Amino acid sequence: MRILVINGPNLNMLGKRDPEHYGTQTLDSIERTLSQSAQELGCELTFFQSNHEGEIIDFIQKETPVSSGILINPGALTHYGYSLRDALADSGLPVVEVHLSNIFAREDWRRQSVMADAAIGQVTGFRAESYHLGLTALVNHIRSQSQ
Amino acid sequence: MRILVINGPNLNMLGKRDPEHYGTQTLDSIERTLSQSAQELGCELTFFQSNHEGEIIDFIQKETPVSSGILINPGALTHYGYSLRDALADSGLPVVEVHLSNIFAREDWRRQSVMADAAIGQVTGFRAESYHLGLTALVNHIRSQSQ
Amino acid sequence: MRILVINGPNLNMLGKRDPEHYGTQTLDSIERTLSQSAQELGCELTFFQSNHEGEIIDFIQKETPVSSGILINPGALTHYGYSLRDALADSGLPVVEVHLSNIFAREDWRRQSVMADAAIGQVTGFRAESYHLGLTALVNHIRSQSQ
Amino acid sequence: MRILVINGPNLNMLGKRDPEHYGTQTLDSIERTLSQSAQELGCELTFFQSNHEGEIIDFIQKETPVSSGILINPGALTHYGYSLRDALADSGLPVVEVHLSNIFAREDWRRQSVMADAAIGQVTGFRAESYHLGLTALVNHIRSQSQ
Amino acid sequence: MRILVINGPNLNMLGKRDPEHYGTQTLDSIERTLSQSAQELGCELTFFQSNHEGEIIDFIQKETPVSSGILINPGALTHYGYSLRDALADSGLPVVEVHLSNIFAREDWRRQSVMADAAIGQVTGFRAESYHLGLTALVNHIRSQSQ
Amino acid sequence: MRILVINGPNLNMLGKRDPEHYGTQTLDSIERTLSQSAQELGCELTFFQSNHEGEIIDFIQKETPVSSGILINPGALTHYGYSLRDALADSGLPVVEVHLSNIFAREDWRRQSVMADAAIGQVTGFRAESYHLGLTALVNHIRSQSQ
Amino acid sequence: MRILVINGPNLNMLGKRDPEHYGTQTLDSIERTLSQSAQELGCELTFFQSNHEGEIIDFIQKETPVSSGILINPGALTHYGYSLRDALADSGLPVVEVHLSNIFAREDWRRQSVMADAAIGQVTGFRAESYHLGLTALVNHIRSQSQ
Amino acid sequence: MRILVINGPNLNMLGKRDPEHYGTQTLDSIERTLSQSAQELGCELTFFQSNHEGEIIDFIQKETPVSSGILINPGALTHYGYSLRDALADSGLPVVEVHLSNIFAREDWRRQSVMADAAIGQVTGFRAESYHLGLTALVNHIRSQSQ
Amino acid sequence: MRILVINGPNLNMLGKRDPEHYGTQTLDSIERTLSQSAQELGCELTFFQSNHEGEIIDFIQKETPVSSGILINPGALTHYGYSLRDALADSGLPVVEVHLSNIFAREDWRRQSVMADAAIGQVTGFRAESYHLGLTALVNHIRSQSQ
Amino acid sequence: MRILVINGPNLNMLGKRDPEHYGTQTLDSIERTLSQSAQELGCELTFFQSNHEGEIIDFIQKETPVSSGILINPGALTHYGYSLRDALADSGLPVVEVHLSNIFAREDWRRQSVMADAAIGQVTGFRAESYHLGLTALVNHIRSQSQ
Amino acid sequence: MRILVINGPNLNMLGKRDPEHYGTQTLDSIERTLSQSAQELGCELTFFQSNHEGEIIDFIQKETPVSSGILINPGALTHYGYSLRDALADSGLPVVEVHLSNIFAREDWRRQSVMADAAIGQVTGFRAESYHLGLTALVNHIRSQSQ
Amino acid sequence: MRILVINGPNLNMLGKRDPEHYGTQTLDSIERTLSQSAQELGCELTFFQSNHEGEIIDFIQKETPVSSGILINPGALTHYGYSLRDALADSGLPVVEVHLSNIFAREDWRRQSVMADAAIGQVTGFRAESYHLGLTALVNHIRSQSQ
Repeated sequence: MRILVINGPNLNMLGKRDPEHYGTQTLDSIERTLSQSAQELGCELTFFQSNHEGEIIDFIQKETPVSSGILINPGALTHYGYSLRDALADSGLPVVEVHLSNIFAREDWRRQSVMADAAIGQVTGFRAESYHLGLTALVNHIRSQSQ
Repeated sequence: MRILVINGPNLNMLGKRDPEHYGTQTLDSIERTLSQSAQELGCELTFFQSNHEGEIIDFIQKETPVSSGILINPGALTHYGYSLRDALADSGLPVVEVHLSNIFAREDWRRQSVMADAAIGQVTGFRAESYHLGLTALVNHIRSQSQ
Repeated sequence: MRILVINGPNLNMLGKRDPEHYGTQTLDSIERTLSQSAQELGCELTFFQSNHEGEIIDFIQKETPVSSGILINPGALTHYGYSLRDALADSGLPVVEVHLSNIFAREDWRRQSVMADAAIGQVTGFRAESYHLGLTALVNHIRSQSQ
Repeated sequence: MRILVINGPNLNMLGKRDPEHYGTQTLDSIERTLSQSAQELGCELTFFQSNHEGEIIDFIQKETPVSSGILINPGALTHYGYSLRDALADSGLPVVEVHLSNIFAREDWRRQSVMADAAIGQVTGFRAESYHLGLTALVNHIRSQSQ
Repeated sequence: MRILVINGPNLNMLGKRDPEHYGTQTLDSIERTLSQSAQELGCELTFFQSNHEGEIIDFIQKETPVSSGILINPGALTHYGYSLRDALADSGLPVVEVHLSNIFAREDWRRQSVMADAAIGQVTGFRAESYHLGLTALVNHIRSQSQ
Repeated sequence: MRILVINGPNLNMLGKRDPEHYGTQTLDSIERTLSQSAQELGCELTFFQSNHEGEIIDFIQKETPVSSGILINPGALTHYGYSLRDALADSGLPVVEVHLSNIFAREDWRRQSVMADAAIGQVTGFRAESYHLGLTALVNHIRSQSQ
Repeated sequence: MRILVINGPNLNMLGKRDPEHYGTQTLDSIERTLSQSAQELGCELTFFQSNHEGEIIDFIQKETPVSSGILINPGALTHYGYSLRDALADSGLPVVEVHLSNIFAREDWRRQSVMADAAIGQVTGFRAESYHLGLTALVNHIRSQSQ
Repeated sequence: MRILVINGPNLNMLGKRDPEHYGTQTLDSIERTLSQSAQELGCELTFFQSNHEGEIIDFIQKETPVSSGILINPGALTHYGYSLRDALADSGLPVVEVHLSNIFAREDWRRQSVMADAAIGQVTGFRAESYHLGLTALVNHIRSQSQ
Repeated sequence: MRILVINGPNLNMLGKRDPEHYGTQTLDSIERTLSQSAQELGCELTFFQSNHEGEIIDFIQKETPVSSGILINPGALTHYGYSLRDALADSGLPVVEVHLSNIFAREDWRRQSVMADAAIGQVTGFRAESYHLGLTALVNHIRSQSQ
Repeated sequence: MRILVINGPNLNMLGKRDPEHYGTQTLDSIERTLSQSAQELGCELTFFQSNHEGEIIDFIQKETPVSSGILINPGALTHYGYSLRDALADSGLPVVEVHLSNIFAREDWRRQSVMADAAIGQVTGFRAESYHLGLTALVNHIRSQSQ
Repeated sequence: MRILVINGPNLNMLGKRDPEHYGTQTLDSIERTLSQSAQELGCELTFFQSNHEGEIIDFIQKETPVSSGILINPGALTHYGYSLRDALADSGLPVVEVHLSNIFAREDWRRQSVMADAAIGQVTGFRAESYHLGLTALVNHIRSQSQ
Repeated sequence: MRILVINGPNLNMLGKRDPEHYGTQTLDSIERTLSQSAQELGCELTFFQSNHEGEIIDFIQKETPVSSGILINPGALTHYGYSLRDALADSGLPVVEVHLSNIFAREDWRRQSVMADAAIGQVTGFRAESYHLGLTALVNHIRSQSQ
């Protein structure tokens, strides 16, 4: 089981980004921890980060045939990236959307996710742990579907 | 560490409720599984379900002094229960909001949670597993705060 | 055939409530007349009134297994009682919504019913007769479904 | 007592129209059944159907002086026919609005009736029976007013 | 100089219509008085009333080539009759819109005229005199344009 | 019969203001012509123009006891001058609102008059003639009321 | 294969209507050219134009049983003619909506088509050629469906 | 003169609730101070607090016949408790609405009170003193009405 | 302790203004009564009324350095006077907003106060007594702050 | 005559994308068919597809000087790609917008095209044929302009 | 070249006003610095500040004939002063709008300027320097226009 | 002091773009002039233009550690580029937003900048000079902060 772990714009800056909302861990550190979780969950992770909506879509299209699911933090694309949304929906893979900060307790425009109805579920607000929980949910969902 | 696990209106009917959105597990079964998770996580759970907004508020007020956090699926109160929202915020406890179904992929009125900005985070869409993930997040949050 | 006849908040005050909108009959009198209609229609009525949304939900959940349909005037819950709405939908029973006054000719907020899409139909504006007509519609619907 | 029974655009096609929403009865069949109800209720019916808002208004204006009430299913004019609405209000007759389908459980634009505040009440969602119930309500209203 | 004087739906009922808003004069009486004004203003009037938006459009199309201006009270078409609006604009004639009642002091939906930007001006609220004033304005406008 | 003729902000600049919307006549010229109309109508005019909402309110309060009606072009106060609106309503005098340009065929914000429901009627779009027509309407209204 | 070619209000005036938006061809000329296209496409056309929404609905209802598809330019009914919309949907025929002008580059109210979700597709903005393209699309759709 | 002093959800927690908005006094302390005011004002107070909308409605219905007025802080029900609003209106008693915090200077959803048009007036923002002022206003209103 | 008591546009007409909403007392009478309250409360009042937003701002700016608080009924400026709002906020003084009528039970536009978030609190609906209560609240607030 | 044929995000996946909305043809197949049409129409096509809004803009800027028109299916950029919209408008070339699916019969957010007012016209809903029709319209438009 | 430098309500209080948004310089100090800039730019400045919208309009009307441009900080009139907006537009002079604070990063109502479309440009957020930059832009604009 | 000067989509086409809104200078020419300003202001400029939101974000992230401020014209990204907005905010550098045209006097969608609250200020409408003024403001801001 191979899972795509995708991070959208500005998430490569974690650790430097406003720590009140995003915590102090770097993306690298999050990915390393996540790799350990993956081992326990019995799946393989392919990491990807880009500030380009187009590159994320390219990546999803290329990797979909050899993947079982997508774990994605779309960054600010969450709120307007309809092309990315369609790429997620078109992939036919189960998608889990995660957010480091509680997007419902910030600016108004952050409250709406245009991705959310293309995902099976959402984990929001638990800093780096959102990824771990989202991955667990995704793997369990895939397992339950393939039974 | 004692956690309140609260379920709002109609969630006592799980198992009979529309299984496409809510899955086939009963609330009793969810609570039993969750108790096992709690043991592993090293916390104690107090379960409560009510169809009365007032009773849930009473329960939160009474249990807050002897509790460390709240895991809540507010049911349809999610969308209009401002009194419950204030009770959660007033408790001063960390709150995690969970939903069985993906509330962002259903009717328009289900997309808005009036609770969400009073919680530290939200887990949505993973059926019974939403509770397990939410509990994990909550316990870890409490642990990280108390360090 | 057993029908639940439910009245929401403040409807126990009928007769004293603003007679321009609600007429002069008491709820007791309405229920008595309705019992006679029920005899003619060949069904049995179970009456319930409460000012508590939670109690109405409890009642619906308890009585659903031994009932064939629900006739409900949700009172002001009509406009915001999403928990009651879900209880009605979850029951799986045919529901008919009735109103004494013409809710479309009063304040703006009374024009919207959050129950209406969970019912098979609505009878609005005919004072006490709304109940009689709604009951007739409900019984006939149940008969036609069971053929 | 003479009642105008008016059907708006496309209702002459009943029986062929989408049966999920409108049922399988033809307008002719509905009118015949309604005539029997009228006999029992002791009133006389004058039927009219048109796809022209203007013709319906003409009809209302002509027949008002010799009529006691109006039973109307305005079809899609329900949602924008302000001229018809004014004709109904100007007639000074009691008006009952009926709908075959539950207009509150379909497209958004069907949820609003511009007629509703010009009627005494509304019966919605019971297929052909909506007419029967509406007629009963109308006749009883007229009787109660004339006492 | 020939002026079309057009009245929309329900205005043939003037005198019987709600006198608080529309006054007590009949349309016939308004037209007779207006004919006298026309004599003084040195123009000829062609009267037309219809409850059919289509007929009013037909009339405008037919009469435009032999007319110099249009005085119109569109009745409730004011608020939704975009086809009539286009007919007025397409005519290329100067149009004056008149209303008997003050449409800005009634229901919300009466406040908006979809005709207003296709007219040179509007006279609103002076009962029958609105027509007289509108006609004067129209004739003077035509005179000033042709100089 | 004494009529207050009030012009709001920037109307003292008529003649210099954008002639496409406001015409080429100066306010002085409009007032002189209006005085002649007044003689024919048998009334006396008191002119007032100010760029200060407060001064216009002061003027209305002072002159109301010795006046029979108000003819007002509120200028841009039309769209937000609620204090002026209340002064007009509080005066108890009949008010006619006039506009030189067709406010319904310009920017969106010009389409709404917060004065309109405090007036008996409105004359809009006929350049200087709007005043003449408005005065006629006002005088006739006052005459008809005092009969 | 017989196709209904329907034109709504004011389209009989083409050639005289604002040529910037609608071009200089008359409806007659458009229909003649379209007849030639029809010969090449191997279908027969029945033309109909009316300024009456009701007449268009009557026509659709009468011709539906002997027709294979509908090509319609609803004129301004595009924006509010819900009765016509229902007639199109009720016909069960494939519908193609065409517009001469680019309705998305004009007034705000022209941007919304209440017909569009009842059609299989829309061709907008190519003057007379919109009809030719729409007809081609319709005929090809019908052919592909019947295979 | 007997006055009902009603506090809605979460107000039993005063003293512990966010002191920036609600001050540091407990409800008990507020009620004791208010009792002293009542003695000076010559009226008797009946205190009631509940987290249940239904219980508050029950209380109002039961106590109305033996009471002269209602002083109420509806807590968060202020913003959605239409059933409570109707109970207040149905009581026929004069109602004064009070708030500890300035609801107009907090979250958007706190700015709207669905109770406000059912009350004679509102006192907002003065912490515990809001109750004292509101009681004074209520008692004086009752006295002035009974003269 | 010196308090500014400010009344906005049209409030000098109290006694003549619509008594249903504003009562029958003149502003002079209200001010005289308020002076007596001030004596009891141990503060000095400086009265000011103007129909000019600018004059009120001038007054506030001039008097702020020698004052302890502001009691203001902004009249209709309540709903749009952002300049006055800024003057109140800039003064740094505690502000109490009062209204004679219940602004929440009148026209829609009266429901919003642009001042409210610049005040410490609001007293609404108690006619002349609103001033007395507001003054009491203001004085007590100032006392409590200076302790 | 050289035409740019541009496909936006996710359209390279045609054939695999949801066939209910997009049909079963691949983009390659569509382009091959379109090349044949081009030969008949006497024009040359340059194909471009990208998932990157920026690359599409780069392409338009580079190719504009040697091209005569643009045929574009912007994919989901249709709904938010204002930069692409400006690139289209800045090119000065005639633009035709095409869509495979009927964007007016899907999710709400798909109903709005931010490109539409920068195009000469739109062809929507005819699957692969939308391209053929759009190309025909574009070529004919260019021919008619160059006459 | 003579430039009008106008400051709206409350800007005379600069230095005392909330320094976080407005800085610590007084208006006097800003004007002195600006005079020095003017000397370098080769223009003459006429300063004006008022808390009265009317006085600012009077000033603009009086000075326009002998002035070349307007530099204005309308204060809170920015958000509702349509009369001032029209005075600026009517003047025919180039207008530059300046703001001390970043109006886009404060309350929602400060984000909209009703002046902005009547100005050639806007400088926002640079405290006192906004004036200097705005003046430079204005003078350069005037120079470029007069070439 | 090193300043990033960033231009968003389509701004590389300046000189060819609609000169009415954007002027006739090329971006190259603007940058050359700006370099001269930079010399006078004592700072170094690094220019960057891209049609790709992602590339601009990459550039900002890479250059931030060695830069003191950002001058940006985001082009159409102004209105929807939330990812760019976050990159600007995350950089921690002072940002000045500039626009060539007056975005407040064009289409509605151009009036809103999603960047504006992440900048210290905005210069809008002065063609190429907007850059010069913005740079001056930025440099002075940086100087004042570092004192």
